[in-house]
Order: sequence, then structure tokens, then C-alpha cells
Amino acid sequence: MRNLDEDNITRAVLAMHARAQSVRLKQVMTSLVQHLHAFARDVQLTEAEWFEGIQFLTNVGHITTDVRQEFILLSDTLGLSMLVTALNNKKPRECTEATVFGPFHVEGSPHFELGEDVSEGVLGEPCFVKGCIVGLDDEPVPRAELQVWQADATGMYDVQYDALPDGTHEHHARGTLNADERGQFHFRTVRAEAYPIPHDGPVGRMLEALGRHPWRPAHLHFMITAPGYERLITHVFREGDKYLDSDAVFGVRSSLITKWIEHPAGETPDGGHSETAFYTMDFRFVLNPLAVQGELPVRRKRASATRAT
Amino acid sequence: MRNLDEDNITRAVLAMHARAQSVRLKQVMTSLVQHLHAFARDVQLTEAEWFEGIQFLTNVGHITTDVRQEFILLSDTLGLSMLVTALNNKKPRECTEATVFGPFHVEGSPHFELGEDVSEGVLGEPCFVKGCIVGLDDEPVPRAELQVWQADATGMYDVQYDALPDGTHEHHARGTLNADERGQFHFRTVRAEAYPIPHDGPVGRMLEALGRHPWRPAHLHFMITAPGYERLITHVFREGDKYLDSDAVFGVRSSLITKWIEHPAGETPDGGHSETAFYTMDFRFVLNPLAVQGELPVRRKRASATRAT
Repeated sequence: MRNLDEDNITRAVLAMHARAQSVRLKQVMTSLVQHLHAFARDVQLTEAEWFEGIQFLTNVGHITTDVRQEFILLSDTLGLSMLVTALNNKKPRECTEATVFGPFHVEGSPHFELGEDVSEGVLGEPCFVKGCIVGLDDEPVPRAELQVWQADATGMYDVQYDALPDGTHEHHARGTLNADERGQFHFRTVRAEAYPIPHDGPVGRMLEALGRHPWRPAHLHFMITAPGYERLITHVFREGDKYLDSDAVFGVRSSLITKWIEHPAGETPDGGHSETAFYTMDFRFVLNPLAVQGELPVRRKRASATRAT
Repeated sequence: MRNLDEDNITRAVLAMHARAQSVRLKQVMTSLVQHLHAFARDVQLTEAEWFEGIQFLTNVGHITTDVRQEFILLSDTLGLSMLVTALNNKKPRECTEATVFGPFHVEGSPHFELGEDVSEGVLGEPCFVKGCIVGLDDEPVPRAELQVWQADATGMYDVQYDALPDGTHEHHARGTLNADERGQFHFRTVRAEAYPIPHDGPVGRMLEALGRHPWRPAHLHFMITAPGYERLITHVFREGDKYLDSDAVFGVRSSLITKWIEHPAGETPDGGHSETAFYTMDFRFVLNPLAVQGELPVRRKRASATRAT
């Protein structure tokens, strides 16, 4: 393994992986090395460009913290996240589609009772969200757990504000709820608004150099889990948003767009009263049942191969 | 640009780069996105694997400091660095070959006079290095600048030791010298030894999972610059080292291997006396003349196309 050149180095690197701990790791790294090398050969990458790449990744690493995930932003803006979502969420057409996870989910958001206000007073127009969670045969999914999270009216998630003196970020405009026995849920929040992804770092500079804007159309994040069903990570998008066709992270799906209906000041869905106009949004989520062990998931696009026994 | 799936997302991402600031950036990013997506499709990357990748890069970013460059280690161990070196250092066969830069070069190393000891007392067996720097027609390259750097007998570079109280690392076993008017140089140092690349971080864990060792064969780094010649970044390797055929960063070239000759205790090449055995090493560097403006670099492997005037 001496005198490697552009033609034989890829084979030499892969030969070093003969004793990899797992077959899958070896498979993934084989493809990664092949594509990484093919990229460098295709563009005849210069040494200066290579070094710029090293510096770019170093900057991405250094701006990344517990609450800012610039590598996820990078993956999102290069379309990798949406591609991985698409590859891993093949399911019957009737099911609610998945979209990108994004960098702003926080584990352990506070639990709310149905009807409560998850916004915790952040800036924004009042919005009453309701919906139901069903399975493929329209059966209600009782007590399904919903995690919701969103930006406030200034386009910021809670974790983007300076931390409190104890280093934490209060949970604002995010929460965990459980649907009722009929799979129905409702809560209060603020209207989701379009916002730019954080663009004061290396990914923002990359977008600028590529002549791209950093905006995402208004959306509310949902992660829904229930025993017997595939976890669903998705957004609901607001109809009419001007960025629906140029989402910086390529996440928009037509089936996830719905109306946020405006109502004049007056009585609100929770029986209260609003001094200002408010909004309502209603969405029906259809979960994909998990295949029962031993039973072939026949409704999936890519069914497992039948094995002779 | 909605409802992107695994088949059309790559085209959609590339369409967003229509207004990129430079043609070259657009070209590089087009290939990068194509290969990144093809990788994910080829291996049908799972969401869990994607997240493991995000965490891996985050860890690489967080261990990287001014003096520890884990992204370069990653590039080196995946063979990307040697590939980029090979792509960018095509030159006549008579010229000294280039090899990887590595992560341990430091800008502004102290200047030494010919004959001085650059080791600054690090652990190791005494070694007297000499050589000459010539061009393709064997013409001496007067006053060529050499930067040299190496690990000590324990396999550590100075920057790998804890920093001094002022945050700096003293320069040890590295220095800058100028050849004399005849292109000749000599200095004292310690014998280069084989060493493992830093493997207490994410790249080390990657190598372990791939069943690879982290060792590099003994070598001394050189960066040689002189007006009128291409800069040469290379190593000289020590003949007989057991890692010459399994260098963790794929950098060995037969033409760069030479004997470190052992001598018994006694008179040293600088007229001094050694109480212990010592070593000598002698290497002739052949630089590639820069193409004179307007003149075609005919001796290069890939000559520019002749243009009709």
C-alpha cells in the first residue's frame, strides 16, 4: 500500500476496512469513501478548496452547542434530511406524510392538559389548534402522545434566545399532550409564522454564497407516538405562505398544508373571549400501523421479501 | 418545489443554486450534493444512522481546537487528503513527490541557522539531517526555505502536550531554516519514530470500529518554498519501518523512503561528540519549476491545451 494515486487510492482505503466490526458499518463506509473520493475527482478539488472545506466544517463544529445544531442545519439545507426522511417513511398513501425533524426539538418538554396554552405567553396572534389521530382504518388512536413545537411571532424558537442564568432555556411554545380516548386533542398557542433558519453562522454564509434565502414557510411541528403505530414526525404548514415553494430545507408536502382560519374578536373555541382577531387550525393525522410480528406489511410500498421456510 | 421524494429532491436542491456567486462554487456544490444524496440512496441510510452521523460530526467539531484538527485527521484517515494531494501535484517524474500535509503543521515556527538543533531537547536519539534542494535540471535552489516538523521519541508533536500557562505551545522539534547559496542544508534533530495518530477522539473510535490501527511509519515533515518553484509539502520516511505498508493516512511513497544510518558513539557530523549512538539522514529534494507566464508547462503530466492565437 504505497504510491497510491488518484486511480488506486479508493480501493486501498476500502481494503483497510476488511475487519470492520459490522457488515452494515462496512457497507456504509464503503459507499461514503467511494462518493467522497468521486466528488474530489469529479471537481478536481484543489488543495485550497480542501482547506476551505476543513475550515468550514471546523466553524460548523464550533458554533454547534446543546441548543444550536449547525450540522443539522447543513444537512437540512443540502436536502439530505428530507431525502433521509423520504427514504425511511414509505407508507400507504392514506397516512399522514412525514417531513424533516429540524434542529429545534427539545427532549422533555412540559406536559399540558388538553385545552391549555402551550405558548407560555410568547409573542403572536392567538391560535386554537384541534384535531384527531386515527389509524389507517379510521380507528381512533386513544391517548396518543403529541409533542408540538414552533417559533414565536418573531420567528424564534425558545432555545434561540439567551439562556437563563442557570444555563437552561424555559420551554416556550412547545409542549407534550395526550389525545383523549377518542384520539382527539385541542390546545391553544400562537399562530405560526414564516422565519429564516439561523443564518448568522457558516450555513448562513453558505446559503448567501449560493444565492439562496434562509426562509421557511410557517409551520407547527408535531411528533406523534402511540403503541402499535409508527412514530410520525411532521409539520402542518399554513396555506398561503409565500415560502411554500422555496422552503430552505425542502420540507413542504401539499398534504400537510392547511388553512389557519381567521376569526374576528369575540368568543373563542375554549369558551373564552378574545379582544383581538384569532385563528383556528384543525388537522387529522393518520398513523401507520406497525406490522404485527410475523405478518408481512403488505400495505407498504416496499414490502419485505417473502422467505421460504 | 413541494412533495420532493428520493427521486426528484437532488434536482430540486441544485435548482436552488442557480444564482450562486461563482461558477466554481456552483460546480463544487453540484457534485457535493449529487454524491451526498447518492450515498444516502445507495445505502438506504436510516434515520438513526443519519443522527449517528450528525453526532459523530458534532463530536469531531467539539474536539477540534487551534492545536487539534480532528477534521484533518478524518480527511487523512478516509484517504481524501492523499487523493487531493495526488490530484494537485502532478509533475515530472524526476521531481520529489508530495504527500499529505497532516494536522500538526504550525505557522511561524522559529528560525534556525544551518547546523542548529531544532529538537529543543525533546526525547529521542540524536539525528543529523542534511541534504540539498535542486530544480529539474539539477540546478541548486539557493536560500530555499525549509520548514521541518516531527514527533518526538514518544510519538507526540509539541502541540499535543498540555499548553503552557499562557495558552501557547513552545516550539519543539519544528523549525524554519534556509538552505545556503548552493541549495544545501543541514541541521540536528532526533530520530523520527512511528507513532499512532491521536486516537482518543471520534476518529480513533471510527478506526477501531473499522478494525484499523492508527499508526503512521516514522517520518520527518518538510515544506520547501523558493521563488520560481512550486511549493513542496512532503515527508521523508525511514526505511525498515513496519508501518510503511499500512500507513493510517495512506501517505507513503517509495521515492520518499530513505535510510537513517546508525553510527556508534563518537564524533558527530557537526564536529561534536556523542556519548550514544546517533543517526544521519541525507535527502535530495527536486523542486518543480513554476511555468513562466505565457510559456506552456510542457514537462507537466497534464499540459495546458495549446491555444490558437
